Amino acid sequence: MFRVFLFTMKKIALLGATGSIGTSTVEVVKAYPELFQIVSLTFHSNVEKGVALIEQLRPRYVGVGSEKLRVELTHRFPDIEFGVGEVGLIKAAILEEIDVVLTAVTGSIGLQPTMAAIKAGKDIALANKETLVMAGKWVMKAARENNVTILPVDSEHSAIFQCLNGQKSDNLKELVITASGGSFRDLTRDELKSVTLEQALKHPNWSMGKKITIDSSTMMNKGLEVIEAHWLFGTDYDKIKVVLHKESIVHSMVVLKDGAYLAQLGPSDMREPIQYALTYPNRLPIKNELPFDLTQIGQLNFAPMDFERFPMLKLAFTVGKKGGAYPTVYNAANEIAATSFIDGKISYLQIEQLVQRAVEHYNETTEVTLEEVIEIDKQTRTIVERWIKEEGQL
Amino acid sequence: MFRVFLFTMKKIALLGATGSIGTSTVEVVKAYPELFQIVSLTFHSNVEKGVALIEQLRPRYVGVGSEKLRVELTHRFPDIEFGVGEVGLIKAAILEEIDVVLTAVTGSIGLQPTMAAIKAGKDIALANKETLVMAGKWVMKAARENNVTILPVDSEHSAIFQCLNGQKSDNLKELVITASGGSFRDLTRDELKSVTLEQALKHPNWSMGKKITIDSSTMMNKGLEVIEAHWLFGTDYDKIKVVLHKESIVHSMVVLKDGAYLAQLGPSDMREPIQYALTYPNRLPIKNELPFDLTQIGQLNFAPMDFERFPMLKLAFTVGKKGGAYPTVYNAANEIAATSFIDGKISYLQIEQLVQRAVEHYNETTEVTLEEVIEIDKQTRTIVERWIKEEGQL
Repeated sequence: MFRVFLFTMKKIALLGATGSIGTSTVEVVKAYPELFQIVSLTFHSNVEKGVALIEQLRPRYVGVGSEKLRVELTHRFPDIEFGVGEVGLIKAAILEEIDVVLTAVTGSIGLQPTMAAIKAGKDIALANKETLVMAGKWVMKAARENNVTILPVDSEHSAIFQCLNGQKSDNLKELVITASGGSFRDLTRDELKSVTLEQALKHPNWSMGKKITIDSSTMMNKGLEVIEAHWLFGTDYDKIKVVLHKESIVHSMVVLKDGAYLAQLGPSDMREPIQYALTYPNRLPIKNELPFDLTQIGQLNFAPMDFERFPMLKLAFTVGKKGGAYPTVYNAANEIAATSFIDGKISYLQIEQLVQRAVEHYNETTEVTLEEVIEIDKQTRTIVERWIKEEGQL
Repeated sequence: MFRVFLFTMKKIALLGATGSIGTSTVEVVKAYPELFQIVSLTFHSNVEKGVALIEQLRPRYVGVGSEKLRVELTHRFPDIEFGVGEVGLIKAAILEEIDVVLTAVTGSIGLQPTMAAIKAGKDIALANKETLVMAGKWVMKAARENNVTILPVDSEHSAIFQCLNGQKSDNLKELVITASGGSFRDLTRDELKSVTLEQALKHPNWSMGKKITIDSSTMMNKGLEVIEAHWLFGTDYDKIKVVLHKESIVHSMVVLKDGAYLAQLGPSDMREPIQYALTYPNRLPIKNELPFDLTQIGQLNFAPMDFERFPMLKLAFTVGKKGGAYPTVYNAANEIAATSFIDGKISYLQIEQLVQRAVEHYNETTEVTLEEVIEIDKQTRTIVERWIKEEGQL
């Protein structure tokens, strides 16, 4: 008896290994050791988790967040090569034997290693929204030129990708992205004035990192997803809808030219989109899959999204349509603002105010180069940080 | 300016033109006169509607239900060729120029013309469930041998077909067929004793012919769909589930190997699956499409199907797994019983009793030929008709 493998061993670079997506990716990889191998990984500063991963996975290359950490770990693991910061991320992504780069880092730091990986011909399993938000135009162009597949890992984009599989592109009429509504879905704007960090971190359906949980509650996360979907699927903003779906069971939908909807449904388990990105176009059982019975769930609810309640979602369409560096400003301002809220420096509603102010403050032409976008990203962070220090202005 | 057509003109044989599916098909065809042409059509006895269709569509060939009607219409339309009964159905289906045969007749009469069309190399847009229920084994084999595509028109099977488009067949784990529950969904078995024909004909979501509306209420229709899905998609009965979904918005679903569900949703409009069968793999807007807004519908409900409440559904799995002529007996007994209920000859619950009794009465080997199946179909009808006359036995 022998077993036929439909897949060859896939060699993976895992950028952002100690985060929520990184952890789920490691579970997927360990479930199928004959199919997946993590050849390189990176983490920023979570030494305990990072060291445990190095011991389990024995990667050939590891990128870390500081020179101090590099020195320390080189002593401890003399047969592994270590790198630092952006250089380390890039090196991890472009190693010769890598087939696919899973970019699970948070924030704009994901852009440069992703671009380097695309130019090196690596397929990209993309969990880092900011890459497409900042540089969708250049990333998608580079992917086309290098014959690289961008495989979405976000549950919404994976759902759309799964629904569009086998569809002719001219059959598409609309994308419908579902939104849980986040931790504060049922609160009025007035009630948002006094919410705490602890309350904001209680997402109704998904267990995720702090930054993305805050972004879910402000709907910034959904806004970034809209912009990401625009680039990933080449869809006009007028053809991207967002609907409130509090159960997060329908991960997203597409509407086809004849009015038929295709939807992807399932449990709130990030292993599914991660594994699909790694096995596409094949599928494999999820090991120890979560129980899922639609007749037990019983009810799925859908409601319109309120742009007045969630101004960051409305703003996403505005900056997306303006184009140029506007989405970058929107994202960079939020990265500083959300982090500052997590660090207790600002109140919850100041997140929105800072993002709004940064977008209004940026009033430039929309014709920019990628280098200018990266510069505007840095400038926006500096400006928003300054505003937070000069708190009287808020 | 010129317009690019993705489609060549498709020449259609429409069997059962005056029924519910026939009427929707004519609407689809008339919406795109540059793409679709009805070259032949058949109807049984609805002269008024049939004559109107002949005048609108000017088909080359028309099949009718009686010699009397043939003579009458030949006088009226001397440049059109007319045929009668099964011979007329077969001739309509195999005309040289026909590309696709849409079989919208009700009941086992659909089998022979479908087989003849397949052998003549015509694609089949199949709205007649009984063809696959009776002869799935032979029909699917003939389709493979003649390189013919069977395109489902039933909304449930079209939904599954749409979800499976682009999926590797070994990615499929389960089919999930949705059931509205029919007119008597919320009634107990005890309450069924006294229901009237008028009540049975009020389907909550779909406007259809009488026979199929009755079959929806007894869940016979869903049972036939289960057997049809088994043949159409080559899926084991253990991998076919039925869930109660009272809104009929999700038309059916598939579960893939990794646990992901794909669902097809939309308004209760038969023009969508009909048009998809005619444009596949392309899609076109539905002219004057029904309004459909998931955020207005608001809520989708799912519940387990109760096999005790709906014994005909349970019986479908039993006869399906037994195979041979068992599904034929199940269907033939119901055709007589449901029609007898419509004609006021028996009570509602006698439909189930007659079907159950016919299946128990048939106790033969499951190794049968197609000719034997057709003979058993006739015998079953005779037996059930006799039982109805000897009503004391019920």
